[in-house]
Amino acid sequence: MHDPLTSDLQAELIRTAHALADAARPETLKHFRTGILSDDKGPGPGGRFDPVTEADRAAERAMRDLLAQLRPDDAILGEEYGRKAGTTGLTWVLDPIDGTRGYISGTPTWGVLISVADDAGPIFGIIDQPYIGERFEGGFGRALVTGPRGAAPLRVGRDRPLSEATILTTFPEIGTAAEYSAFRRVADRARLVRYGMDCYGYALVAAGQVDLVIEAGLQPYDVQAPIAVVTAAGGIATDWEGRPAHEGGRLLAAVSPAIHAAAMELLAGIS
Amino acid sequence: MHDPLTSDLQAELIRTAHALADAARPETLKHFRTGILSDDKGPGPGGRFDPVTEADRAAERAMRDLLAQLRPDDAILGEEYGRKAGTTGLTWVLDPIDGTRGYISGTPTWGVLISVADDAGPIFGIIDQPYIGERFEGGFGRALVTGPRGAAPLRVGRDRPLSEATILTTFPEIGTAAEYSAFRRVADRARLVRYGMDCYGYALVAAGQVDLVIEAGLQPYDVQAPIAVVTAAGGIATDWEGRPAHEGGRLLAAVSPAIHAAAMELLAGIS
Repeated sequence: MHDPLTSDLQAELIRTAHALADAARPETLKHFRTGILSDDKGPGPGGRFDPVTEADRAAERAMRDLLAQLRPDDAILGEEYGRKAGTTGLTWVLDPIDGTRGYISGTPTWGVLISVADDAGPIFGIIDQPYIGERFEGGFGRALVTGPRGAAPLRVGRDRPLSEATILTTFPEIGTAAEYSAFRRVADRARLVRYGMDCYGYALVAAGQVDLVIEAGLQPYDVQAPIAVVTAAGGIATDWEGRPAHEGGRLLAAVSPAIHAAAMELLAGIS
Repeated sequence: MHDPLTSDLQAELIRTAHALADAARPETLKHFRTGILSDDKGPGPGGRFDPVTEADRAAERAMRDLLAQLRPDDAILGEEYGRKAGTTGLTWVLDPIDGTRGYISGTPTWGVLISVADDAGPIFGIIDQPYIGERFEGGFGRALVTGPRGAAPLRVGRDRPLSEATILTTFPEIGTAAEYSAFRRVADRARLVRYGMDCYGYALVAAGQVDLVIEAGLQPYDVQAPIAVVTAAGGIATDWEGRPAHEGGRLLAAVSPAIHAAAMELLAGIS
């Protein structure tokens, strides 16, 4: 896929991504806030019913079934069912429930992550929050949110110094001790740090509310939709050394080159 | 107000509380996710425009104006405009935006807190999340949530040991170092701890998703609606020593007497 995509193909990929998100919504909501925690006994495999795993799998199956109809020759990489090869050079990257701890706790901060990538990384992505009914999308020149207040363009906030910045993160629940120390060096210089937001943090960078998201220990399916949405909204998303991050690991999303560089300097030096 | 309230008066108080929440919603949403952080320069007092303070004040004014019409003889305690005396023995306790850091960051975890109290504490309360369009209410034999998926009863989850519990908190952003150490003693024995949820955590205890919320450094207007909602849903909400908590300070909300006692034992011993 080194030729530019035609606008017809772009439109088809956007329609497909939305159809996938629409198909995932009811599957993820079926077990959300049912009051059953994942260690409750129930009719699931091994004698236990795990609502997150059930919802995760059902949502990914719904999306894969739809791709088999709509884009059968594209590759797929999904959190639950792994890789399926394709012939078009395009790969759909699916995380049916990103933020499973948020899902279990009932917080509306988990999301369905859907993106389509070529060899160089994601080219279009969606972060969908089914409970709120809110969808952040970016790529092919589009960047918008649709939700309880209708549709609005997504645009990162203005550049400001780290001392005035708001950071969102899922630390300290993720990453290694060394990664957490590096994160703290940045966090200690920021104006406000908030925790526990899962993938929703990236949506809020794109929406102009948050300046930085810093995370670690991520998988490709955790990062590709966020990278697409943040980038489309005018932000930057790389690993902690400024390299492409779509294979996962450590992710640094920022509203501007200046604050991105300031954060990278403080994050540097861990192995 | 030591006589039991008539059912007509209870119904009037419930209607009034909902009318207050309806009046606050548009005022809080006017400045939500406008991309303006509170240190941006603008047309506000002192040359700076603070969207949270603006929204906080406008929402409380809208509620006070409505109370002047609907329940002019009740007392009021509001976060922004303080105390107004009354003659009925009933006090409306109002926090127009609880979770201002969440509001600034754009997260849907802040809420409008509305409750009505007699001398012994809150008797009915609402936790309203305007962006999601979600309202948790409890008191006078009612406990329900209305939101994106319609109306549903609120009922705390089943009793489980601390080792299987989910805790929500706004630590480490709140409280003293000693309070944080005490919190960690409980957190370290729980299965899952999630951060940054503001008043939304209490709603999730009432909704059966979370076992404990532990917080400190609270004001009366921060706690009274959460206490009413958690209690109405079958839970317990006291200070860290099991005493009434409606004057603020340290709050421990739990699904059952057993886990409440287990948490209190670990929280004990700080001055």
